[in-house]
Amino acid sequence: MADYQAPLRDMRFVLNEVFDAPALWASLPKVAENVDPDTADAILEEAGKITSGVLAPLNREGDEQGCKWNDGEVSTPEGFREAYQTIVEGGWVGLGGNPEFGGMGMPKTLVAQFEEMMQAANMAFGLAPMLTAGACLALDAHGSQELKEKYLPNMYSGVWSGAMDLTEPHAGTDLGIIRTKAQPNDDGSFRVTGTKIFITWGEHDMAENIIHLVLAKLPDAPRGPKGISMFLVPKFEVNEDGSLGERNSLSCGSLEKKMGIKGSATCVMNFDGARGWLVGEENKGLAAMFTMMNYERLGVGVQGIGAAEASLQSAREYALERIQSRAPSGAQQPEKAADPILVHPDVRRMLLTMKGYVEGGRAFSTYVAKWLDISKYSEDQQRRKHAEGMVALLTPVAKAFLTDRGLDACIMGQQVFGGHGFIREWGQEQLVRDCRITQIYEGTNGIQALDLMGRKVVGTQGRLYELFAEDVATFIEENSGDETLRPFLEPLAAAFERLSDVTEHVISQAGDNPDAVGAASVDYLDLFGLTALGYMWAKMVKAAAPKAEGDTSGFYTGKMKTARFYFDRLLPKTVALAEGIRSGSGSMMALTAEEF
Amino acid sequence: MADYQAPLRDMRFVLNEVFDAPALWASLPKVAENVDPDTADAILEEAGKITSGVLAPLNREGDEQGCKWNDGEVSTPEGFREAYQTIVEGGWVGLGGNPEFGGMGMPKTLVAQFEEMMQAANMAFGLAPMLTAGACLALDAHGSQELKEKYLPNMYSGVWSGAMDLTEPHAGTDLGIIRTKAQPNDDGSFRVTGTKIFITWGEHDMAENIIHLVLAKLPDAPRGPKGISMFLVPKFEVNEDGSLGERNSLSCGSLEKKMGIKGSATCVMNFDGARGWLVGEENKGLAAMFTMMNYERLGVGVQGIGAAEASLQSAREYALERIQSRAPSGAQQPEKAADPILVHPDVRRMLLTMKGYVEGGRAFSTYVAKWLDISKYSEDQQRRKHAEGMVALLTPVAKAFLTDRGLDACIMGQQVFGGHGFIREWGQEQLVRDCRITQIYEGTNGIQALDLMGRKVVGTQGRLYELFAEDVATFIEENSGDETLRPFLEPLAAAFERLSDVTEHVISQAGDNPDAVGAASVDYLDLFGLTALGYMWAKMVKAAAPKAEGDTSGFYTGKMKTARFYFDRLLPKTVALAEGIRSGSGSMMALTAEEF
Repeated sequence: MADYQAPLRDMRFVLNEVFDAPALWASLPKVAENVDPDTADAILEEAGKITSGVLAPLNREGDEQGCKWNDGEVSTPEGFREAYQTIVEGGWVGLGGNPEFGGMGMPKTLVAQFEEMMQAANMAFGLAPMLTAGACLALDAHGSQELKEKYLPNMYSGVWSGAMDLTEPHAGTDLGIIRTKAQPNDDGSFRVTGTKIFITWGEHDMAENIIHLVLAKLPDAPRGPKGISMFLVPKFEVNEDGSLGERNSLSCGSLEKKMGIKGSATCVMNFDGARGWLVGEENKGLAAMFTMMNYERLGVGVQGIGAAEASLQSAREYALERIQSRAPSGAQQPEKAADPILVHPDVRRMLLTMKGYVEGGRAFSTYVAKWLDISKYSEDQQRRKHAEGMVALLTPVAKAFLTDRGLDACIMGQQVFGGHGFIREWGQEQLVRDCRITQIYEGTNGIQALDLMGRKVVGTQGRLYELFAEDVATFIEENSGDETLRPFLEPLAAAFERLSDVTEHVISQAGDNPDAVGAASVDYLDLFGLTALGYMWAKMVKAAAPKAEGDTSGFYTGKMKTARFYFDRLLPKTVALAEGIRSGSGSMMALTAEEF
Repeated sequence: MADYQAPLRDMRFVLNEVFDAPALWASLPKVAENVDPDTADAILEEAGKITSGVLAPLNREGDEQGCKWNDGEVSTPEGFREAYQTIVEGGWVGLGGNPEFGGMGMPKTLVAQFEEMMQAANMAFGLAPMLTAGACLALDAHGSQELKEKYLPNMYSGVWSGAMDLTEPHAGTDLGIIRTKAQPNDDGSFRVTGTKIFITWGEHDMAENIIHLVLAKLPDAPRGPKGISMFLVPKFEVNEDGSLGERNSLSCGSLEKKMGIKGSATCVMNFDGARGWLVGEENKGLAAMFTMMNYERLGVGVQGIGAAEASLQSAREYALERIQSRAPSGAQQPEKAADPILVHPDVRRMLLTMKGYVEGGRAFSTYVAKWLDISKYSEDQQRRKHAEGMVALLTPVAKAFLTDRGLDACIMGQQVFGGHGFIREWGQEQLVRDCRITQIYEGTNGIQALDLMGRKVVGTQGRLYELFAEDVATFIEENSGDETLRPFLEPLAAAFERLSDVTEHVISQAGDNPDAVGAASVDYLDLFGLTALGYMWAKMVKAAAPKAEGDTSGFYTGKMKTARFYFDRLLPKTVALAEGIRSGSGSMMALTAEEF
């Protein structure tokens, strides 16, 4: 397997040339305080070194060894503890965190690049800093000043890690029916009791303390989603002076055996009257959880891109080295027994499909990160409001589309290797197994599609969709005179019109037919994602075109040609999706249970 | 995980009601000698019992334990040896074998159903009888009478197993560059020397002897594919009286660690001057191998269907039992905390997509098996010739399309389970890992697509395609007056016309552009497969419609409604594929190596 190398050139292209991130950062005073282009560049450089040099080499062994459970204690694969220390020492966990409590205050546009590298290098490991950062976000947004002061600095540093405890055996998607209880103590704390499952890094030996954010129900809480509260439950209680106190009464009951991300611990967590503290308001736990969801969900989308990038790097290298058969147009390297398989059109198709999704996906995740930065940091309320709408609309697309295409890409990367792709030593099959979880957790991709179609599109009667539509339309309009761009803008405009028509169509159906949203949702998200990536490719063409002439590195010309492939071969899928959606919910809902 | 139950009702529907297999068998005297409808039914029944009762229960443990290598010996997972004995005692290995040497002479239409059950129940195990049957086919077709008499009876019985030794570390797809050598001895035998990899069940402890069919090069053989010969190399030599003689000088060097089918042994085989005998003519080894390829490739397609059927069964059961959230149209089971997830449109979409591919795929594999039976057994030369053309055309579609859709279906079945689908105990993730190999071995799906587009379609200037086209056109024509069928025939006719147009388009491009075939091939195979399954669904509608009225079991009405879903939601993908193909090879071939 090729050694993973952080794709810094591509990241810089997206950040600086496609989105002009330095100008964005300069326009946001709180961001400008912490970052300038040189700092950002140094961070990227260093992130590349650590992820390629420290995390990637542990990926395969982490998968082989897995975490081990022993009487409630969880030991991590060889090298993970040392790597975690490296991450802690570099301050990487708090990269995007609130500077008031020790975070580095970096914008998401930059943090997302680091996240992609980390997840590409070692997804199982990367989940630990990722979940800690997520827990910090929720705590920072909803916790009391006291809780924040007590916990955030050690979490941002990574000395303590964070975990999110939502799922129960009978309650996954439907958190409204959880049974974990929280009963008030006299001192303002609560006793939390219940069983949580699928808790990523809920227990391990890398951090000194583990801070759980647990969803539970207060006595007499309303039924359903409006009766859920969030509690901070530390593994070790924390004394007034910040030192660690008593071991809290929670424990890891077992670890799941799973398909992938085997280097990570997926824990059953038992809370037996564990001491916890309310985060945010009573019965508003789900809302508090959703605060960080936009970040986490984008982060999961980025995992899909990361895995696919790692797969692409290996597949590209293999396609250049592996010789097998001759090019259809005749021998390209007659001195060898056969030609490198890169000469075969179908191998190129696979690599180009991967590139189309990975590079388009990286641009899209950066685009969403841009809106996240504006929504968080802009001092112009209208601009912030607008960005919030974009974030709400685009986040489910980023989570689901980038992970669906991420898996597709990993499967293709594996296919490039033929039989060797199925063998563990080449690493391609691990990427498939690891990437598969990204379609499932943080809300399955089906749930993302419902969120997009139901809540965001139909729920606002298209108001949020209009924000995105305006952005695309402006771009097409502004560049309509550009001869180089025209062959890309035409199919983009057609796909975009298709998307807008379908959007209107489903909104009009949804009033009378409660099943209309669910029947359209997954295909709609695909249609949206393909169109959005078409938009990204057009933006990349705009940035690359002026530099393509005379480019001898192949970087800019490669971008132009990959864009062409995307528009020729991948964007046409939108036609079929639109046709499928228009067939409505009838054939989906017609069957009785027996008829399945 | 739901216990696998052989889908006998569906198989009987396809055999008896869709394809009228009894009439087919009666029309082929050599088949009619061995099978009548009652016998066939008894075989299905018994196959269902053995696969569900004996093989399926070993599937999970087989994956957990894997095979173990110890100094050249390979031990199988617990229970595999006993199960193999059961298969041997039932005569299942020789089910389709030549009766002259102890086979049961059953037609492929029937054998394919048994194969599906076996592969669905336990793919890792099922590979052993499958490869033995394949080796028998090659030996029966090309071996000398002496070799056949000496080896076939014990192979058909399963007392000895078979293995196919093709791949070498540097030669997978490109067998022309293999290095294994065969040098003549004075007694007419050969000394075979070389290393083969990825040899499925090349070594194990279930059979008394293992008969390898090895591709190797004679001294002074021409370079490339025309210099390859096939040799029979037994693990133990066989004495004149049929008893086992000396251990031959071949050994298993190691086992591969792999993504799935872990219960099977994937061997590195070292041949150190092992004694072997030529099978067929010198330098005609590849042709001999291809004799059995049509059977094996259909068999691999059937593996895809089998894995997907197993996944569908579990997912359906889970969707009925798992309660989570409420139906969009309001609570369906208000007495429970939530509704079964089958109420959600998107869960239905996943199950219906699986059904569309699995049931359509089963009909298609039976359709291809029908042509195999005619091509092998018909005494009418013209009929046989026609069938041979159909087999040649349809086999790569069956192999690649059914395994691609098989993996899609397994991934969906896993998705229905949410987080539980990622956990090993539910079995869904194993089906994904196992099914994945079917896209790779027996010629990757990319190679299948090249075979279809290049050799079969363009290579015959559309002559073979016309055979299929005629069959579809006749069906549409004959049923054009049928009101019930019309809503299915119209989209079928449109897809079929699309396929025919694209076929003509690529044929016309291929003359001037050597890359045209490879640039179209995979999308073309998809387009072909989707259309072919549309044809199958129309045939199923024709068979089901008369019985759907008054059907209280849901069986026939379920078929009608699933067909509707197929035409509404899956067949439209053909539109996008045709558009992509028409964009040609330009964007695929434009990139230099550096631009990737």
